[in-house]
Amino acid sequence: MDNKKCIITISREFGSGGRLIGKRLAEKMGVPYYDKELLDRIAEESGFCREMMEEAEKKAKNSFLYSLMSAMGTGEAGPDSLSLNERFFLAQFDTIKKIADEGSCVIVGRCADYILRGMPEATNVFIYAEEADKIRRAVEEYGVPEDSVKKMMKDTDKARANYYAYHTGRKWGEHVNYHLAMDSGYLEIEDIVDLIIKYTEVKINRLESL
Amino acid sequence: MDNKKCIITISREFGSGGRLIGKRLAEKMGVPYYDKELLDRIAEESGFCREMMEEAEKKAKNSFLYSLMSAMGTGEAGPDSLSLNERFFLAQFDTIKKIADEGSCVIVGRCADYILRGMPEATNVFIYAEEADKIRRAVEEYGVPEDSVKKMMKDTDKARANYYAYHTGRKWGEHVNYHLAMDSGYLEIEDIVDLIIKYTEVKINRLESL
Repeated sequence: MDNKKCIITISREFGSGGRLIGKRLAEKMGVPYYDKELLDRIAEESGFCREMMEEAEKKAKNSFLYSLMSAMGTGEAGPDSLSLNERFFLAQFDTIKKIADEGSCVIVGRCADYILRGMPEATNVFIYAEEADKIRRAVEEYGVPEDSVKKMMKDTDKARANYYAYHTGRKWGEHVNYHLAMDSGYLEIEDIVDLIIKYTEVKINRLESL
Repeated sequence: MDNKKCIITISREFGSGGRLIGKRLAEKMGVPYYDKELLDRIAEESGFCREMMEEAEKKAKNSFLYSLMSAMGTGEAGPDSLSLNERFFLAQFDTIKKIADEGSCVIVGRCADYILRGMPEATNVFIYAEEADKIRRAVEEYGVPEDSVKKMMKDTDKARANYYAYHTGRKWGEHVNYHLAMDSGYLEIEDIVDLIIKYTEVKINRLESL
């Protein structure tokens, strides 16, 4: 990428291999990778306790109220857990902005596409796959027990969609939020990584020529 | 593509350049291109008059009843124009299936992604762009007058979405219906064509190795 600044955000369905794609992408581009690593950085900069953040986020994501408020498209502070979660989100917002200002990187999840919207160097990618492919990957590669994989997949993606809708007012997975969306079920991770790099290279080069 | 059979369907937002992409794709791959050409072929095989098909389709697409029935997810035959439109769709269905059986090609629009669903050699692509990019292209390249471009864009895409929903029961533009979706606003046509070819090559090669 000739050292041009380039941020790639990856949003992904559970079992689509999005995390692996993000990791390999960062390795291949030689840039930092943020997924769970982001929580350490947020904790470090905000002073919040990482375990507390994880706990509050998990609780909020699965709550009925959170789901209801996502459907209503409102992100107002509610009861304590939501209010705390809101504060965590603001800390996350600041940290993601800061990380993106620092230089090239790959960020998986955490509404990074929304947080960095309008940033010309950001390319937002959505990775999805057909159910059978996601189940196969989740069972074979992530080690999820076969009898619970469907429920886990449904619950995880529902929580992701709620979280995204609540904090952004947008619909998770809707094409307008991404530059590139790809079904990962037909390609190897390495091929997908190459396609994303190719798209990003062309986008960044064109940006420079404007 | 080493003469491997490969069908690419392109669905596209008005002003995204999808038709140009499809045309260039077919040229570069050296395979037939079907867009308006499809109507001639349907007319030839079904005996329907081409002008009549176009007229009925246009009328149906813009009717309130069509829009209502799309929203209800029902494709039942209604009044005469819808009923005729249904028959045209069936003829289109047969012709698209036949064309895809014959060999590699690029098909733009006409629910081809749905009609060829489950066909391993088919790759379904959705092309979209941000409003400002679509307006620029529509005005500069298609010659649409500036004062009517927004309305034309909105009406055309609404008609496409209704048509798709009516005949397929699916939501137009939703990622699950496509293998690859791309914002065309950041890339040149040629780059997009290359990315689609790359995705398709890898997909087809992987298919052969299974």
